[in-house]
This record gives sequence, structure tokens and C-alpha cells, in this order.
Amino acid sequence: VGVSDLAGRLRDIHEEPADISAGPEQVLGRVEELFDKLIDGLADDRPIWGIGIGLPGPVEYAVGRPIAPPIMPGWDAYPVRGRFAARYGAPAWVDNEVNLMALGEIRAGHARGQQDVVFLKIGTGIGAGLVSHGHLHRGAQGVAGDVGHVAITEDRSVICRCGNVGCLEALAGGAALARQATAAGRDGRSPYLAERLRDKDPLEATDLADAVAHGDPFSVELLSTAGRHVGSMLASLVNFYNPSLIILGGGVAGAGDQLLAALREAVYRRSLPLATRDLRITRSMLSDQAGLHGAAFMVIDELLSVERLPNWIDLGSPAGHPELADPLPE
Amino acid sequence: VGVSDLAGRLRDIHEEPADISAGPEQVLGRVEELFDKLIDGLADDRPIWGIGIGLPGPVEYAVGRPIAPPIMPGWDAYPVRGRFAARYGAPAWVDNEVNLMALGEIRAGHARGQQDVVFLKIGTGIGAGLVSHGHLHRGAQGVAGDVGHVAITEDRSVICRCGNVGCLEALAGGAALARQATAAGRDGRSPYLAERLRDKDPLEATDLADAVAHGDPFSVELLSTAGRHVGSMLASLVNFYNPSLIILGGGVAGAGDQLLAALREAVYRRSLPLATRDLRITRSMLSDQAGLHGAAFMVIDELLSVERLPNWIDLGSPAGHPELADPLPE
Repeated sequence: VGVSDLAGRLRDIHEEPADISAGPEQVLGRVEELFDKLIDGLADDRPIWGIGIGLPGPVEYAVGRPIAPPIMPGWDAYPVRGRFAARYGAPAWVDNEVNLMALGEIRAGHARGQQDVVFLKIGTGIGAGLVSHGHLHRGAQGVAGDVGHVAITEDRSVICRCGNVGCLEALAGGAALARQATAAGRDGRSPYLAERLRDKDPLEATDLADAVAHGDPFSVELLSTAGRHVGSMLASLVNFYNPSLIILGGGVAGAGDQLLAALREAVYRRSLPLATRDLRITRSMLSDQAGLHGAAFMVIDELLSVERLPNWIDLGSPAGHPELADPLPE
Repeated sequence: VGVSDLAGRLRDIHEEPADISAGPEQVLGRVEELFDKLIDGLADDRPIWGIGIGLPGPVEYAVGRPIAPPIMPGWDAYPVRGRFAARYGAPAWVDNEVNLMALGEIRAGHARGQQDVVFLKIGTGIGAGLVSHGHLHRGAQGVAGDVGHVAITEDRSVICRCGNVGCLEALAGGAALARQATAAGRDGRSPYLAERLRDKDPLEATDLADAVAHGDPFSVELLSTAGRHVGSMLASLVNFYNPSLIILGGGVAGAGDQLLAALREAVYRRSLPLATRDLRITRSMLSDQAGLHGAAFMVIDELLSVERLPNWIDLGSPAGHPELADPLPE
């Protein structure tokens, strides 16, 4: 959680882990506690102009609710926007976290000023945020960029939690890598990971970074293979979308140069030469804060959009305009 | 070629085949002849406000020139915009023809009012036009939608003219289908196509439509397989882009219901359920004229854009503003 001014500068932030599967009451209750503390900590009694929230699943942007999120029990259609708008008497907007990371990067990070950008998060799952001509492309249901379930292999033994076979996420997502790392530690294919399992069982995908730093051949190969799979998907995306910049974020993307090198090779081998002529592929510099920056800019963009601005000018204050404070009352 | 008014209504059109491989001098010379005739045929001496041109290859939109088009010898970097702007004393814009078809559909066809649309042309080659939030997504180099060279199979025996293996176009493009149809006629796998080869050798992809209408099992299977391959690519595109509408155009797309049925099945099987909840897949109704409509609206949009409008108002006439008549003098 964080507080930003209307120029998008983050004034104060607080980070802590949250278990999204605990459900919206518990998770959002904690977010509200943290919000309250941040607001109390502000020097003077400034008004809250708006609230921006990112969720790790598909969001129907127009109504500010998650829709059918696959790893978020209890969240389907939960009125996230309505809850915050009512509590703080300010307009609220909700989007998928990867979209917000992409927005953060084009406004405050690496991609500033770029028009056509893809932000790819490789964490437990895999998802992309797409920027078209400087604006987020959210798609018809707000699920554009759901690239984790693109078919990558014809091997029907690779079964994904989505019920399909051959999905990218089942090959190269953090959960899949953690499973393979743990298995390799248990059956002795990797002595380094076996040693590590004594302290921590099961392993996580980020453990592979240390293993690679120690020269563990199994882990090097595992991350290279994952990079090739992600690169294969990105090659299609480059042909489809012709971005000028691809930014990689998430825990797995930061787990070593092997993955990035294999990914780059696959993209350059499989994409059309013209589409890769000026293409850059880089790691996120904003890192975990890309999403916070993006949430701030989402609110600022919406507040200052051409459609809304005349209302603000007439009213002077957001609190005086109830349908903006909660555009879709619950 | 056609003439449109400033509301985008086509007033007069003329259609004839052209051989793009004859090079720009010959092809564009003929286009100018036809333009001159159409203009002479207008009732009164109205000014030409602008010229829009679609090309069957990648176009760098900002400068109005084709870039590295794969099946257009002699066209690379040819100053198409400059040639027409100079000859007619009016501003000219050039884009890829599939982009213009997509634009035509969202302004004058099936997709009117839709925000997120994919137009897929399956002709000799395969290409897509992408619409994001009501605007064309052209990409960084203007080659977005180049989906013919997305990898569809791991079978390395499928070699594409682009030099890569496993490309969609090498499996399901019109040229590939024509080759397979001709081979099946020659070696007797299809008695119907063998019969047809007596009048016409080699066959074209559109001959498959008649073969299917006559119940030729080989042709039914060939088009179904092509539909599955195109559907497999579209399933990835649906996950990436989350369109509300996919419009199919081009000669192969019109070659029978087998292809469309197989394509639909592959999309619904492989895309995420949320992304296909309200997805429609339909054939183009504007057919060959989608591109003409799109070219007209490209010009109208550019003429009436916020950036340009003040200039027009000051000047009264486009002819009085030389840098608009030829934004990049050759």
C-alpha cells in the first residue's frame, strides 16, 4: 500500500506479504488498516482524491470487481470498488496487477514515453500487461494479456491447473518450477537442491537463483528450458503485437541470467526480423513498486480524464459528487 | 479504387486484378489512370481532400512507405505517399491493407461500435488487423498482426518461405492449400481435383470450395485441418488480446463452412472460458470492399484529427498547406 500525490510521486509505502486465498474480507480488511495508518501519518488533513487497487487475477474494469479469478477463492464478483469508495468517500478504480505494473513502467519507469509495450510478469503464474499507443489495452472482458495458458507444446502429458494441456504456465510458471526443483532435490538429480531441502521443504522457484549462483547444472538447465518456453510464447506475441519494448518482472524473471538469455534467443529466432529490429527486452527497474506507481497513475488518469474534468471544475471537491465517489453503487 | 465523400460513403468504385510483383511503377501507374478516370467522372469540380492507399505488406505508417515487404519485389521503401501527394496536390496516407479492412469493418461493417476487434485475412498469405479501444493498433514498426509466421507445429518438416519452420502460413495459407490441392489431384488422392486439373493447372485455394460443395473427402479434410491450425493461432490471440469480435475475410475464409467450423472449435477448446464468453467469430460482410471503406476512413480520421483541424480551419483548403500535402517530401 502507498500514498501518492497528484503528480504520481509515491510519498509513503508499506509492504508485507498477503495470502490472497484468505478471501476478500481478511485481505481487504488488512489493506484498510494499512491505508488508515498511512493516511493518519500524513502531515496535514489533505483530502483523498481517489483509490487505486491491483488484484492478481482478471478484473472487469468497468465495474471494479474480479471475475472468475482462478486462484482467489471467495473473490468472484466481490465489490472491491464499492467497498473502498464507501469507506473513504472517494472514487475507486480496480484493475489487474500486471496491467498496473505496465502502466507504472510507461509512466514512471523504463518504458516512459514508449507507445507499444508488453510487461510480462513471471511469478507463480504468468501474465502480461499490454500498452497500445500509450494506453492500456484491457480487452473486451478485461482479460487481455492472459498468456499463461497459451499452448506451447503438443506434449499432452503437460497438464495445467486450468484443465488444458501444454500451457506455458504449466511449463515455466513459478509453481511448476518449484515442483520440479523439489522433485530434483528429493530424487538426487540435484545434490545442491537436496542439501537445501533439509532446511526448507518444499522449495520455491526463487531457490533456483541461489542454485544457479552455485553452479548447479540441473537448475541452470531448468531455468534455460523455462526461458525457451517463455521466449516461444513471446515470439508469437511479438509477431501479433509488434512492441518496441518488453519488460520482465516477477520472482522467476529475477532468478538469473540463464532464463533471460534463453528467452531472448527464442524471441530473436522465431519472430519476424522487422518486428525485432528495434525491440528491447529488459528487466523491470521499478521491480515490486511498478504496480504501486501504476495504481497511482490509474487514479490520476481517471480523475483528470477529459470526460470527468468538467465535473471537478464545477464541484471543487470529489466528495461533493456522489456518483463519482461510487460510480456503481453496490 | 474508389471515391468517397467526407462522411465515408463510397460514391464510385472500380475493381480489377493487379499483379503486385510487377513493381510500383506499373501498379501505381495503373492506379493513377483509374483515379484520373474516377475524378473526371465526378459531376462537378470538387477538391480532393486526401488519398488513402492500402498495400499487401508491412508499411511504416509514419512515412507512408512499404518496409521489407516479402512478396513485393521493388517496393521496399518506395515513396508511395510522396508520389500520390505530389501528383494530386493533396495529403496521402498509406497503410497495410488488412489494417484498412479492420478499420472499414469497425466504421462501416459488422464491427461498427465495437472496441476490441481482430480482422483476420486468410488469402494467399495470412494477416490480421488489430483494433484496440476503437483505434488501430499498428505496433512499433507498423507490423502488428503479422500472424502468418507464428509457430503452430513442432514438425520441422513444414518449411515456410520466410525461412522458418512450422509457420501458420506454410500450413493454412492459400498458397500452401493450392499446392496441396494440386498434388492431391496429380497423385489421384482426390479424383475430383484430378478432373479439375484437366482444365486448370495448377489449382488455386478457391477451387477447394467447389470440391467441398461436390463432397470431395480430401478437400473437406484439407480445409478442416487448415481451420484447426488457424484456430490454434487464434486461440493464442484471444488469450493475448481478448477481442469481442473476430472477423474473417479473404478467399480461403470464404471457401466453405468446414474451415470456419474447425476454426471455431479450436478457438473455444484452447482459449480461456472468460475470454470466449461473449466472443463472436463471423465472416466479413463488406468482403472485398472492407479495405476501400477503411482507406476512406483513414483519410477522414487524419483530416479531422484534433492535431490537424486548426490548420484546416485557418487555411480553408488543403492545397494551401504544402507540408500537409506531402508531410515527408521525397
